[in-house]
Amino acid sequence: MIEQVKYKIDNKTKPLGALGRLEDIATQVCLAQQTLIPTLEHPTMLVFAADHGIASSGVSAYPSEVTAQMVANFLQGGAAINVLCKQHGIDLKIVDAGVNQEVEKHKNLIDAKVGKGTNSFLAGNAMSEAALETCFDKAETIIESVHLEGCNVVGFGEMGIGNTSSASLLMSVLCNIPIEQCVGRGTGLNDEQLAHKLSVLNQALENHPTPGNARQALVQFGGFEIAQVCAGMLAAFKKNMLILVDGFIATAAYLCACTINPAIKGNALFCHQSDEQGHKLMLEFLDASPILNLGMRLGEGTGCAVAYPIIESAVRFVNEMASFEHAGVSQQT
Amino acid sequence: MIEQVKYKIDNKTKPLGALGRLEDIATQVCLAQQTLIPTLEHPTMLVFAADHGIASSGVSAYPSEVTAQMVANFLQGGAAINVLCKQHGIDLKIVDAGVNQEVEKHKNLIDAKVGKGTNSFLAGNAMSEAALETCFDKAETIIESVHLEGCNVVGFGEMGIGNTSSASLLMSVLCNIPIEQCVGRGTGLNDEQLAHKLSVLNQALENHPTPGNARQALVQFGGFEIAQVCAGMLAAFKKNMLILVDGFIATAAYLCACTINPAIKGNALFCHQSDEQGHKLMLEFLDASPILNLGMRLGEGTGCAVAYPIIESAVRFVNEMASFEHAGVSQQT
Repeated sequence: MIEQVKYKIDNKTKPLGALGRLEDIATQVCLAQQTLIPTLEHPTMLVFAADHGIASSGVSAYPSEVTAQMVANFLQGGAAINVLCKQHGIDLKIVDAGVNQEVEKHKNLIDAKVGKGTNSFLAGNAMSEAALETCFDKAETIIESVHLEGCNVVGFGEMGIGNTSSASLLMSVLCNIPIEQCVGRGTGLNDEQLAHKLSVLNQALENHPTPGNARQALVQFGGFEIAQVCAGMLAAFKKNMLILVDGFIATAAYLCACTINPAIKGNALFCHQSDEQGHKLMLEFLDASPILNLGMRLGEGTGCAVAYPIIESAVRFVNEMASFEHAGVSQQT
Repeated sequence: MIEQVKYKIDNKTKPLGALGRLEDIATQVCLAQQTLIPTLEHPTMLVFAADHGIASSGVSAYPSEVTAQMVANFLQGGAAINVLCKQHGIDLKIVDAGVNQEVEKHKNLIDAKVGKGTNSFLAGNAMSEAALETCFDKAETIIESVHLEGCNVVGFGEMGIGNTSSASLLMSVLCNIPIEQCVGRGTGLNDEQLAHKLSVLNQALENHPTPGNARQALVQFGGFEIAQVCAGMLAAFKKNMLILVDGFIATAAYLCACTINPAIKGNALFCHQSDEQGHKLMLEFLDASPILNLGMRLGEGTGCAVAYPIIESAVRFVNEMASFEHAGVSQQT
């Protein structure tokens, strides 16, 4: 199959390799879909939102209420991810995975609430094993529903005040990288606040045994949205959908998912390297090359949405460009 | 004005600076257009094509006929730039600036032919001063026409077998950088061919006095398409249009243009860092940060077209995202 894909790409009217990364993306999509005529159908962005017990320990520049407020903003259409999804014709759905307030019903809201935020992982586990199972079940149901709508490419975004702390701990324990290198400024901590965040996370690590696997790590340090993103990615792979990986937190969820099933990498497109310290290192650990590096650090799936037209360009050139023979253009001498 | 722009951007529902490069682009566009409600109207891609006398010295991996063949491919809709412009709703026009064959009339072809290719710059000047003036006049007319159609954002692409040689010499003499650092593999030279190209360009440098300004450099080493791109950028700036700068050759044309009028930088967006060696260095010389780095090296304006949706995202978030106050979201503590 890879030879056929290479042959098709190399016969397009351009010097060999001249479309650079677009050619890599096109090749990956063709191989994932096992076709020479790849498609992106019903692109969907799922933004999983949840609250974190640890937020009460002052690890974020924003108060916990902002999670619910931003969910309302998503549903009203005012957030960055709304603007970007509208621009690119991406269907946007917001998932209440565990916001600590009631969220009003809305046509674009999926109720998958597992609880009103996780417990603080300082004292004990963030969630029970049963709650983790519920996260997996609910995410699988969501993906099945999106797949039934005809979607074959799904982006995973997140919103949750405090969730960079959760992601940093998951990265540290699963990559075996010192927590200092996994912690960043999140939504905009100053030096003092960053030092406090680091001390909180060090304390959390001391209070827990080293987890034996990704599921244990999610029970200890996860968020409901992170667990659902992880499970959603695994479910999307089962349906052979393309998986768009967003920034630091979504990549931490991917890290859990690919620890559980490494094969998902073939379907995963790493969209944007976040400005959040730690993301670069996590991507290197995963041997993943992000498509974009625009210095963004917003989450919500915005990195996926901004990269989406580039993925579309890759698919389009394979399907729409003329071959040398067809266009009557001379080849390299 | 910049304070008002910053205020508007900082009050969008996102952490300060969290949209990274999109915020820089938005700020630049607002300032260029002197507005808090920026717009991209009737986006247009102009691909200037011409032949080069130097092509007969074996500096390219492709024969000279490919210029005309690719122009035919552009007009038939089969090239990469066709696919990308169609994807993004960009109006594509092909300019015959000096192809060495007759090009059949076509609704998307602009006849601005100055001659059937330049002279080889090995023996003498590539073009006369009169031919350069004709390039400037014709390009200005083209831009005026595009502007009349309502366009306020224009991309400049090029096609011309042999034109990386021309661009390398312009870079070397205008940036005062040794030619070795300005020469690359173009459409795909091997090591031996690259060494030959370098020796040809060294010989060309020996045969010419150091040019006193950008116009002299264009007369000595330019191509008709490079001269028209340079002139087109200057004309677009006069109409306060946004100028999308493509890869190595288009940036060499920009280098000439900004030497003539440095103010154009405010309207210039550097879209993609080419894989062609020398482009990185030229961008550094210009203190220009490319939006994308996708390892492409195709020209045709493809870098502009791939970056266009990102520029559009920047404009859209300024106009469409909700403010903290409007969305009822708490601000940073």
